[in-house]
Amino acid sequence: MLNTVKIKAPATVANLVCGFDVLGLCVDAPFDVMEIQLLDRRAVIVVSGDGFSVPIKPEDNTAGASLLALQDQLEGPIGFKVTIHKHIRPGSGLGSSAASSAGAVVGANYLLGNKFTKNEIAQFALHGEKVASGVKHADNIAPAIFGGITLVRSIFPLDIISIPAPDLFITIVHPQIEVRTKDSRTILQKEILLRQAVKQWGNVGGLVAGFMKNDHELIGRSLEDFIVEPVRSTLIPRFHEVKQQSKAAGALGGGISGSGPSIFMLSSTERTARVVEAVMKEVYGDSGIEFNTYVTNINQKGIEVIDAPIKQQASEIL
Amino acid sequence: MLNTVKIKAPATVANLVCGFDVLGLCVDAPFDVMEIQLLDRRAVIVVSGDGFSVPIKPEDNTAGASLLALQDQLEGPIGFKVTIHKHIRPGSGLGSSAASSAGAVVGANYLLGNKFTKNEIAQFALHGEKVASGVKHADNIAPAIFGGITLVRSIFPLDIISIPAPDLFITIVHPQIEVRTKDSRTILQKEILLRQAVKQWGNVGGLVAGFMKNDHELIGRSLEDFIVEPVRSTLIPRFHEVKQQSKAAGALGGGISGSGPSIFMLSSTERTARVVEAVMKEVYGDSGIEFNTYVTNINQKGIEVIDAPIKQQASEIL
Repeated sequence: MLNTVKIKAPATVANLVCGFDVLGLCVDAPFDVMEIQLLDRRAVIVVSGDGFSVPIKPEDNTAGASLLALQDQLEGPIGFKVTIHKHIRPGSGLGSSAASSAGAVVGANYLLGNKFTKNEIAQFALHGEKVASGVKHADNIAPAIFGGITLVRSIFPLDIISIPAPDLFITIVHPQIEVRTKDSRTILQKEILLRQAVKQWGNVGGLVAGFMKNDHELIGRSLEDFIVEPVRSTLIPRFHEVKQQSKAAGALGGGISGSGPSIFMLSSTERTARVVEAVMKEVYGDSGIEFNTYVTNINQKGIEVIDAPIKQQASEIL
Repeated sequence: MLNTVKIKAPATVANLVCGFDVLGLCVDAPFDVMEIQLLDRRAVIVVSGDGFSVPIKPEDNTAGASLLALQDQLEGPIGFKVTIHKHIRPGSGLGSSAASSAGAVVGANYLLGNKFTKNEIAQFALHGEKVASGVKHADNIAPAIFGGITLVRSIFPLDIISIPAPDLFITIVHPQIEVRTKDSRTILQKEILLRQAVKQWGNVGGLVAGFMKNDHELIGRSLEDFIVEPVRSTLIPRFHEVKQQSKAAGALGGGISGSGPSIFMLSSTERTARVVEAVMKEVYGDSGIEFNTYVTNINQKGIEVIDAPIKQQASEIL
């Protein structure tokens, strides 16, 4: 019986500007690599493959918490050891914790003969996200597990909808400043104006329709956020320069990836996506802030089992 | 030159439960019939074809205000006379004012050789809606003009998106109590909880995806409203009985049509739609409230020019 599997757990861009806590997409790069091993005893062990320290108690770890939730559904002497090679930087806003929590349970499920459905796997992974952000949110987990673009229509009960998406190119810049998901949640207002909310759900409807109609102009017009971006963008130096100059360079639109500080932009062509990357490099070039950029695609598969080590696709790590 | 045209202006169901102020659909029945006549002088005249009194000043009338807005774009001695045969009851929540305001300008535009685009026509019609409800909202005007299901992504600038829709059957009950659009707006909270708004835009995304995927179950699950329905339903006697029993009878879901008091339900088959109609009749049968019911379809054409008088399709007017 196969008792070890190697998986590739890609980064994800949550929110997609207007769809706070509901929309997300999976990208080809960056991604984590994880080995998951089946144990013949009741244990969950999480190890860093890069030599970093990891919380000893599995319940304090994103991968550990999701594996514990899965293990809860199993009887007998069965456990898991997971070794994580982290390439998606924690705190980047690129779904690093979702990759760990969802990757671990997708791998474990593979070793169990895919006993659980993708929806059940997402339920387990939510426990890992709660460790990371204090809230059960599935907007990174869903695209990580299902691939492509996903809508989390509801968390209780969990209802994940795959949104057919056109070929788009994604440019990401990760300015390496610290923005913790917990902090970026607490600065949001608990109450919002109804008239702002109406604009927001008009845009969510427009963005979903734009993806499904392959209408790039509509996608661009719908990438508007009147509620979260005005607050969170204050935490990201040069956000507005990046956004404005990327759009001037031909990007359809974009904004904060997840809770930031990464910024993503969508483009219709790879050529434009690379011009946008150049814009991002120029904006941050003299800022004194370290940063990475990625030019990547929508990853339609999500987390997948791999056999051989795969070279990372990050176009540049400064 | 053709100087008179007869048009059919159908009813519309705005909001579609979760999409307050943005979603709407056009139905086959009921509909108004209007004659629009080109005048060779600077005048706008609105007349009731049914003998009812109409505000003398055109700016105080929904059809008149939209015609004035259109006339503003024209030079010289040109005017319009419109005669309205009203079958969509004012105050029913079925887009009676939108039928008048949009119907008048669609007819006038036809006489002008379709000089204006549908988007421009919708802009003119917004002036009529403002007379009726105090607010420029396009969620009835858009489906009336474009037909089918529409999303008003934005009002300023006006951005109307047609949402490809499956064949669905619509059952409507209009309990004849008075709910004025202005009143039903003022009782809404100006501020809402962010977490409720997130649920709402999850549902708007789900509903748009459900329509475009022809996924009836998803459409049903997405017909949820945590913000407007809890408030407005208090104005509609027996609302919850109608909703609960219609769903128990097989309806996918539904809720308040526009600002009410009409209630609509979507069904996958005509057979179910007729069972739902029977349920509605039973609920209101002993209520002492007069009511109409309609079993109808999505009208993909919207307002259209007709040559001969058409018999109304209302399945019953008690």
